[in-house]
Order: sequence, then structure tokens, then C-alpha cells
Amino acid sequence: MPTKRIEIVQDILTVNDQIAEETNRLLHSKHIFSVNIMASPGAGKTSVILRTLQELTPEIKCAVLEGDTAPVTIDAEKVSGIGIPAIQINTGGDCHLNANLVRKGMQSLDLNALDFILVENVGNLICPASWKLGTDINVVIASIPEGDDKPYKYPNIYRGIQALVLNKVDLKPYVDFNLSYFKAGILALNPDVQFFEVSAKTGEGITDWAAWLKKQIKEVE
Amino acid sequence: MPTKRIEIVQDILTVNDQIAEETNRLLHSKHIFSVNIMASPGAGKTSVILRTLQELTPEIKCAVLEGDTAPVTIDAEKVSGIGIPAIQINTGGDCHLNANLVRKGMQSLDLNALDFILVENVGNLICPASWKLGTDINVVIASIPEGDDKPYKYPNIYRGIQALVLNKVDLKPYVDFNLSYFKAGILALNPDVQFFEVSAKTGEGITDWAAWLKKQIKEVE
Repeated sequence: MPTKRIEIVQDILTVNDQIAEETNRLLHSKHIFSVNIMASPGAGKTSVILRTLQELTPEIKCAVLEGDTAPVTIDAEKVSGIGIPAIQINTGGDCHLNANLVRKGMQSLDLNALDFILVENVGNLICPASWKLGTDINVVIASIPEGDDKPYKYPNIYRGIQALVLNKVDLKPYVDFNLSYFKAGILALNPDVQFFEVSAKTGEGITDWAAWLKKQIKEVE
Repeated sequence: MPTKRIEIVQDILTVNDQIAEETNRLLHSKHIFSVNIMASPGAGKTSVILRTLQELTPEIKCAVLEGDTAPVTIDAEKVSGIGIPAIQINTGGDCHLNANLVRKGMQSLDLNALDFILVENVGNLICPASWKLGTDINVVIASIPEGDDKPYKYPNIYRGIQALVLNKVDLKPYVDFNLSYFKAGILALNPDVQFFEVSAKTGEGITDWAAWLKKQIKEVE
């Protein structure tokens, strides 16, 4: 029985990857750049996203897909609140988004009117790592109070990312966090990752991170 | 195919629950109390656990099972470092412990020499909620910088717990956290939960939480 289960899971992952590729081709045909943002619950994904979107708009036409394990609209409402289209995706208890859910979510967006789609994955440092969504890049948002040992304890999520955004740097004075140890853990897994230090609370570092993202967006236009 | 997958998953959960019941019976026959501690990555599980064990020992004979998704021994070494038996359980990438892994881990412990077994689950606010381990109680450790909206976004994990330990209260002055909103979210899901505010950093609140735990341990002796 374990073998059968593994076969079925592999089947599902194969189908998922095919859908992800189709999504990526569709988005490129529309000159849309896309990013999958992953993080632990409470790293400040939505706060960083709101600050980032404020830097990108109105020049870049943005939309957000909000993944949640429960039928809540807290994050989608925050994004809508700053005038950006937001689609809520409820995974129905599942611990990650998948390519099919993302494709369905995108059907509610006018792709001809967009330059950039940001997908906020479910808060989880383990499960989202295995599931391609069809986005161009993957980003992890980490945060100072989570601790500096996370790359050592949850390595898979850091392997397939292009950028790491370290949030809540305003809390550095109050938390024991060894930045060199944290960075060394990530660079050992992923030597090419772009590294940004930000605070969604104070705005520190957001401009640099948003400028890098904007450069990626401009390249597919 | 989706139906087949669901059947198999249900089968696995049924077997899991049977093993969990056997484990619980075995532990009770040895007068051992046990707890399953769950949290988001970086909530400070291990730091709270270390402080708690220092309050309980030497009166209570403790052991710890450390669940991790990767083959790291960071947490087990910290527990061993204060002289308490610690068994590392590597889930092999899985996002939660299960009853079989916990049973295997316990085989390395001398159950006749113990009063209390503490299981530290994998850092994850979603997946561990569905998997009984055979422990007497479930506890979630939350933390101030995670934000006050977690009970609304990850409701399942708060439903089956007996105690909620809110860690990092030393960061209250530096973080926007609405305690009433957080508590209301948890109490709506679980009106009978015991609520403790602690700081593993300063030690605040640890004595109250440890005293409550000690009372539960004493009741099964």
C-alpha cells in the first residue's frame, strides 16, 4: 500500500507540473511576470507584499492571488484595500497551493490588463516547496524573531528560491539573531539567492527589494 | 483517482489512530503523562521546552522526542545539554509527526524510569492537527511577533488543544499585537483552552505554565 500511495502522489505531482508549465507559457504570452511567495505563518508576508505593491504601482499593473488553508479573506481584503485586484484561494485545509488552484484563481483576472501577478502561498515552511505553481520565481520571506536556525531545520524551502527577504529587521535590537549563521545556512543550500533585509513596519529596505523585483518584471514585458 | 487517494489516506489515518491509542494505553500503564507540542516554525518551541523542563526536573523524570523534517539534531542537542534524554525523530521531509514515528522513538526510552514524555512536533500550523500521536494533551505555542490573526487563518490546529502558550511577551512593546482579538479567535474555536503568557527569554510566566503541567503529570502518577 505505501508503494501505491507513492505512485499516486507522483502522478499528482506530474499533472501539477504540466499545469504549472501551461500557466507559465500563458503568462509569458501575455508578458506577465509572476512570483510565488512562501513563508512561515507570521513572517509578515502580507505586510511585505502591501509595501512592495505600493512601490510598484501605478507603473506596474499588479494582481494578487491569496492562498489560505481556511475560508478567510483577511489578506485579500488588505490588498483590495489599496486598490489592487486580489483573488482569495481557499485550499480547503490543504497545507500548500497547487498549480490547479492557481490556474483557477487566475481565471478571475483580466490577464490583458496586467504586468505582474504575485501569489501569496499558505503559511508553511515545508509543504509548498514541492509544488510548482507556474510562477517565474520563488521567494521566501523570513523574519528576525523566527530565529537564525530555520535554513538548517527546513532546508527544502530555501533550495528552489531566487530571493530571500528577511523581514522585521526593526526587531534586531530585541532578539538574538545571528545574521551570519542564518545567511551561511541559506547560501550553503542556494549560493545564487538574492538577499534583502527589510522591515514592513518601518519601510526599511523595501525600495531595494522592490527595485530588484521591478527589474525582473520589466525583463518579460 | 481522487477517491482512491482519499480512501488510502483515511486508511492511513485509521491505522495511525490505532497506534496512537496503543501508545496512550502503554504510557498510562507506566503512569507516564505525555504532551504533543505544536507551533509555527520560530515560535520558540524548543526555548519554552527547555525552560519548562528546568522547572519540572529533578522532581519529574522527563524525556523529549524531537520531531524534525530534516536530519538535524539542533534541538535534541539542546535538550541533552541540560541532562534530559532526547530522541531525534526525522520525518524524512514529512510535515508532521505520526503515531508510528512516535512509537518507534519511544522504543529508545526506558519507560520504567519516566514520569513525563514531551513530544516536540515539526514546526507547522497546519499538518500536525490531523495526526494523533497517543499523547494525553495537545499544546500550541504561539508567539507575539507571529501576529494576532493566526487563530482565524489556521483554525484547525487550535481546535484540539488543551493549552495555548503565548511566547515572546517580552516583545509586546515593539510589535502590534491585539491580545483580545487573538484570545477571542482561540476561545471561539476552543472555549475550554488554558491560556498562558510566557517569555522563554526572560522566564516570565514559565512558572505558572509549568505548575499547571506538573498538576496534570501528578494526576496520572
